[in-house]
Amino acid sequence: MKSPDYGKVTEEVKTALAEIIGAKDIISGEGTENYEHDETLKAVPCPPEVVVKPDNTASVSGIMKLASQYKIPVTPRGSGTGLSGGAIPIHGGIVLSLERMNRIREIDTANFVCVAEAGAVLNDLHQAVLDKGLYYPLYPGEMTASIGGNVATNAGGMRAVKYGVTRHFVLGLEAVLPTGEVVHTGGKFVKCSTAYDLTQLIAGSEGTLAVITSVILRLISQPGSREILFVPFRTLQDAVRTVPEILKEKILPVGIEFLEKDILDATEKFTGKEIPLSGYPAYLMIMVEADDQDQFLSIADRIGKVCLRMGAVDIFVPGSERAKRNLLEAREKFYPALRQLGMLEMADVVVPRSCVADFVEGGKAIATKHGLVMHASGHAGDGNVHFHLNAEDTEANAIKAKECLADIFKMGVSLGGSISGEHGLGCAKMEYLPLAADKAKMELMKRIKRAFDPFNIMNPGKVLTSD
Amino acid sequence: MKSPDYGKVTEEVKTALAEIIGAKDIISGEGTENYEHDETLKAVPCPPEVVVKPDNTASVSGIMKLASQYKIPVTPRGSGTGLSGGAIPIHGGIVLSLERMNRIREIDTANFVCVAEAGAVLNDLHQAVLDKGLYYPLYPGEMTASIGGNVATNAGGMRAVKYGVTRHFVLGLEAVLPTGEVVHTGGKFVKCSTAYDLTQLIAGSEGTLAVITSVILRLISQPGSREILFVPFRTLQDAVRTVPEILKEKILPVGIEFLEKDILDATEKFTGKEIPLSGYPAYLMIMVEADDQDQFLSIADRIGKVCLRMGAVDIFVPGSERAKRNLLEAREKFYPALRQLGMLEMADVVVPRSCVADFVEGGKAIATKHGLVMHASGHAGDGNVHFHLNAEDTEANAIKAKECLADIFKMGVSLGGSISGEHGLGCAKMEYLPLAADKAKMELMKRIKRAFDPFNIMNPGKVLTSD
Repeated sequence: MKSPDYGKVTEEVKTALAEIIGAKDIISGEGTENYEHDETLKAVPCPPEVVVKPDNTASVSGIMKLASQYKIPVTPRGSGTGLSGGAIPIHGGIVLSLERMNRIREIDTANFVCVAEAGAVLNDLHQAVLDKGLYYPLYPGEMTASIGGNVATNAGGMRAVKYGVTRHFVLGLEAVLPTGEVVHTGGKFVKCSTAYDLTQLIAGSEGTLAVITSVILRLISQPGSREILFVPFRTLQDAVRTVPEILKEKILPVGIEFLEKDILDATEKFTGKEIPLSGYPAYLMIMVEADDQDQFLSIADRIGKVCLRMGAVDIFVPGSERAKRNLLEAREKFYPALRQLGMLEMADVVVPRSCVADFVEGGKAIATKHGLVMHASGHAGDGNVHFHLNAEDTEANAIKAKECLADIFKMGVSLGGSISGEHGLGCAKMEYLPLAADKAKMELMKRIKRAFDPFNIMNPGKVLTSD
Repeated sequence: MKSPDYGKVTEEVKTALAEIIGAKDIISGEGTENYEHDETLKAVPCPPEVVVKPDNTASVSGIMKLASQYKIPVTPRGSGTGLSGGAIPIHGGIVLSLERMNRIREIDTANFVCVAEAGAVLNDLHQAVLDKGLYYPLYPGEMTASIGGNVATNAGGMRAVKYGVTRHFVLGLEAVLPTGEVVHTGGKFVKCSTAYDLTQLIAGSEGTLAVITSVILRLISQPGSREILFVPFRTLQDAVRTVPEILKEKILPVGIEFLEKDILDATEKFTGKEIPLSGYPAYLMIMVEADDQDQFLSIADRIGKVCLRMGAVDIFVPGSERAKRNLLEAREKFYPALRQLGMLEMADVVVPRSCVADFVEGGKAIATKHGLVMHASGHAGDGNVHFHLNAEDTEANAIKAKECLADIFKMGVSLGGSISGEHGLGCAKMEYLPLAADKAKMELMKRIKRAFDPFNIMNPGKVLTSD
């Protein structure tokens, strides 16, 4: 995979790096193994030639200037919790870890804004903001992730129905271009019609256009307490058709998840904890926010009526904090539960939410045709479907799984969807992008990449092929 | 201003255009005068060589291919209601009017999505969506604007506190590249982490990157009725400081406007209608949505308490629909009222909302220094300040006004703001962009422009200079 055109991290380069950030924040040889991978299923680890841990934006700029000079590939890295290999240094070179740039620079309570360095851990950011009486509502599931990584992948999560995804909370960025210039985009404002929106272009570009060093985030006032309704249906179609009906009731749930029997059974077995009302084919898990118990009861009553009208079998409202936590934990245990069954591939297609049931049914049929089993769960409220291909872990099955994945992606795109709803493409899903983007769009994106990165050193081999 | 390098619309070109869209939808000579201008204050009209009115995307593609071949500049145009000259054909060439592409292609009630052609008029779109029981909440003020123009300028308006701006409702686009290829971006989903966000890059680019032919818009369920609180304060600082305190109360107003005595006096004089509680130095006009009268009274009570705690003199809640309409109409009459005083320049800076009072005070001082009078009003909830420079309309004053504008922009940027919050730069404000974007950012944006538009034929002379 290594391109012969790239420069190597020679002793000369290491000396120059040490001059920029100091020798103690450079790792080469032993210790680099922690930077060979992220949390992507079955991705091949790749050793970096050197890991650098700058402490400030000027150092990042210096590193990028040096990398430009020597044409050395640079892989930016937050906490390394990504699921599509965005932080794997597939061409070796420099891993630029932002772990030390983890300060919350400012929480501005007049403008409801937080300015955080890219390496700030989501958990810390949440807490710091809460301490000032404000709130950052995005919850992509992994609270040890860095905010820079969240922005780079445009992380989503379970609260998108009400709050959208990470990019909707990014008002501005400080970023270092591949050639070393520091750019500031956006600001402490929601409205802006001043030239091109570089903020939203760099957000979601998975470190291929620039190194994000700091983000300006929009905050909200603290929402009410979060409550859950757990609603069994006789078919997934019934469950999916209920979603727009709930939204038409002037109720805006935080999120609406769908769950199927096979996954709940696997999870019950994995955790040893019973899930209430189990045994039905499909469920909605509806999360709402309410200022007080009265408001919640009124919302629950209205949602319950809609669900029953649309064919729900029953409505379960956990009566205690413990019961609520158990339900949420069951949802969060899907991945390890399914992983135990021999997981070959996982993906997170997004389709128009009305197509979720068609997508799941179609995907299962495709998997069966390939001799595999597909399990699906995900975000019924926003059409983001997580699916897993399970079978015994053999080389033959691995090949089948790749082919099956391509077929499922094709179907998702034909339903009006796209390859990834929240994980990003990284190197793990990059090859499938042409299924969702025709030649004109691919070429345009490559020209945009070159407009940022003339030497193709910025996280090369991610998102777009570099031919 | 005409570049000698551009091709001319010769008879040969006209014949080729007629082959693409038919002779009856081409205007040259008489009738083109309606396409020489938009609604920008004091912009110099420029005649196009030809106006074409395609009816479908394939025709737009054909026109752009032809324009590429002959290197003819193309100015896309919606309803021509822009305020910064984005639709003025400053290099002559082709005006590509989207007025006939005004269909609502689809209203999808399961996915809460509307697909509208770029020329669809905002008023029609609002009504069509309402007829299906859904709602498009953006209200930039000019309901005869086209949705394509709204997207191209990222139009804002008075509801940004709750709903954000146009780009926040754009899920996807159909657009024609300057070289004629049709690209589709985004889709009927909120979540997407599949390569670069071309939707948000093209949105707000004022027709300089591509011709938007159709937009996929996010819709919401119908909100409650809209009510107003009109609150006088003893100083603008007091009014501005009240805004975050309201938002901390878990109340999300649709919008919060600020108004000053000078503008209200001019408006009263202009309309001949009395404004309630007049005579105080500054006001907040707070717009909220409520499901019923009880909910509104509760919200009004909470907002009222915050305002009084922060120094409000009184709280006025219009008791009838007529009183409510009068207040809103007064707000909408600011522009003609001030225009009567001899308006030399207008602009719509955005600053962090905590800086609105400092910006207005500073701006007035700068105007006084230049021998002019500055009046300001605007969106206290989102920091978007509209200001007008008034004085007798002489050549000497026009020069002063330009200098004054630059000084005010500089101050806005120094407060953390930007040149335009919602009108765009077009050709009217383009020259000021370097005040908000340093060399690295300017050069990056120019490279992005070239990645889309290698021949610089797509609305040249707007947003960015083309050196």
